Amino acid sequence: MNLLIVGSVAYDSVKTPFGERVRVMGGSASFSSLAASYFTKVSVLAVVGEDFRPEDRAILEDRGIDCSALKTVPGGKTFHWKGEYGYDLNEAKTLQTDLNVLGTFDPEVPESLQEVPYVFLANLDPKAQMKVLDQLRGPRVVAADTMNYWIGQRRDDLMDLLPRIHILIINEAEARQLTGEFNLVKAGHKILSWGPKMLIIKRGEYGVLKITQDSIFAAPAYPLESVFDPTGAGDTFAGGFVGYLAEAGNLNPETVRRAIVMGSVMASFDVEDFSLGRLLTLTRQEIDGRFKAFKELTEFSGTV
Amino acid sequence: MNLLIVGSVAYDSVKTPFGERVRVMGGSASFSSLAASYFTKVSVLAVVGEDFRPEDRAILEDRGIDCSALKTVPGGKTFHWKGEYGYDLNEAKTLQTDLNVLGTFDPEVPESLQEVPYVFLANLDPKAQMKVLDQLRGPRVVAADTMNYWIGQRRDDLMDLLPRIHILIINEAEARQLTGEFNLVKAGHKILSWGPKMLIIKRGEYGVLKITQDSIFAAPAYPLESVFDPTGAGDTFAGGFVGYLAEAGNLNPETVRRAIVMGSVMASFDVEDFSLGRLLTLTRQEIDGRFKAFKELTEFSGTV
Repeated sequence: MNLLIVGSVAYDSVKTPFGERVRVMGGSASFSSLAASYFTKVSVLAVVGEDFRPEDRAILEDRGIDCSALKTVPGGKTFHWKGEYGYDLNEAKTLQTDLNVLGTFDPEVPESLQEVPYVFLANLDPKAQMKVLDQLRGPRVVAADTMNYWIGQRRDDLMDLLPRIHILIINEAEARQLTGEFNLVKAGHKILSWGPKMLIIKRGEYGVLKITQDSIFAAPAYPLESVFDPTGAGDTFAGGFVGYLAEAGNLNPETVRRAIVMGSVMASFDVEDFSLGRLLTLTRQEIDGRFKAFKELTEFSGTV
Repeated sequence: MNLLIVGSVAYDSVKTPFGERVRVMGGSASFSSLAASYFTKVSVLAVVGEDFRPEDRAILEDRGIDCSALKTVPGGKTFHWKGEYGYDLNEAKTLQTDLNVLGTFDPEVPESLQEVPYVFLANLDPKAQMKVLDQLRGPRVVAADTMNYWIGQRRDDLMDLLPRIHILIINEAEARQLTGEFNLVKAGHKILSWGPKMLIIKRGEYGVLKITQDSIFAAPAYPLESVFDPTGAGDTFAGGFVGYLAEAGNLNPETVRRAIVMGSVMASFDVEDFSLGRLLTLTRQEIDGRFKAFKELTEFSGTV
């Protein structure tokens, strides 16, 4: 296996102005591993309860995702998130969070995965993210996500994690919260001084900024006429991004830029349907077609 | 003269977290004509009061801007705007608006300017914008801006203006207000159905979207480490954009994309200093250098 993804597998109950779904499969590891599965061999390390439906496990396995480390807690219930979006689809209002088995998730990396070269630590307690790293033997690239809760409540742990990862993938508000800097360039350079070699800032419908010590790359989000459900767009971006990197096997600036666009391509598909829907039916032709459309969306001649 | 700009010449009193300036020169026509002056020959049609300082007129004239249609109203006072920005520099809080001579501005186009090929109608009462068009003999390209006030209070006039212009340049919130559509692609197509051939949506620190019937172009804003005063950024963008178009003399898709990037380049300079400061000291070398930096900011290889 080439890429290990550690995160949540969840049941989501989601309402948007365009419809409603109850207890459909979601979670950071589900979205990101499905996105990554279009590019590389993926293993998922996550935990579910006894209520987790075999057909939902099959959704991952049918895409070739290794689920040997997707553990069921006897007598436990799967993490459940309930949220609602208004017409401004940029931010969900969380109505209910039942951590269930995720509350005591203590990730154990099976022997067979300890030498995996690429790792994506989706949003989790930074202590759990570090515990995963403790069990790996020198991964080549570690990317990690986090969220406002950990920045506010587990700041010290998060600061311990940062020197151990290569790529931090967070959203705009989180970058500001973490650094106390409103200006994103300043915030970015502060975060880089804490360890990561690369910062990816997600800006929802406005796209993505990549900040490294010596350059910045900006990619827009693909403008869609119909957005049904933004749930998982950030995780889908991360999965497509890291999955593409894992397959390319290098972090050359050109590769990283294409990986960011590929992540954006995958996220643009995700929001076109509820839950994981659109990520199950994609073809490589559709993916490459939208990559090309991104090129057309942003291209201009460099001659003044 | 190649480009006629009709708008306001004002005195601004501005406070940002980084400083304060009282009664410095501003106004949509000032910002946009200075930006355009780096690319083409510009004439300004605007009105000021007797308090307008000769040295402020000289600021425009020193950049080669034709001020023969910048009229002084005897006994009148120049339009004055007072505003304040928080750390989120995206939106100004207007503290005071003294329309003064702008309240009765009745634009008269001198004979010598009636055959001008390119026109930018900066934000004004749409009736005044149409009055300008009534006096022109078939301009090749007309671009116009507007604002929330006219969309809300003079909607019928604005709808009469739209079929008479080629390019509408407004911000995101205005596009939504005008159409009642939250989705910008839908909003864009609705606006195009009302007349303009091209819609430019300004998204502040997130850049610009261009929407035409058959394509979309997205340009980011240039990420700056220091932003001092965003006043006039939208007008500066418009001036650079239309000025570049006027000099190129065509609306080929490639030209339009470069013009959008050039507008963004000029806006990125504008915000680096208070008032018109940065727009007075620019060199063509600095402008071309940042254009190149935009290319590096957005470029990726199209090979998947």
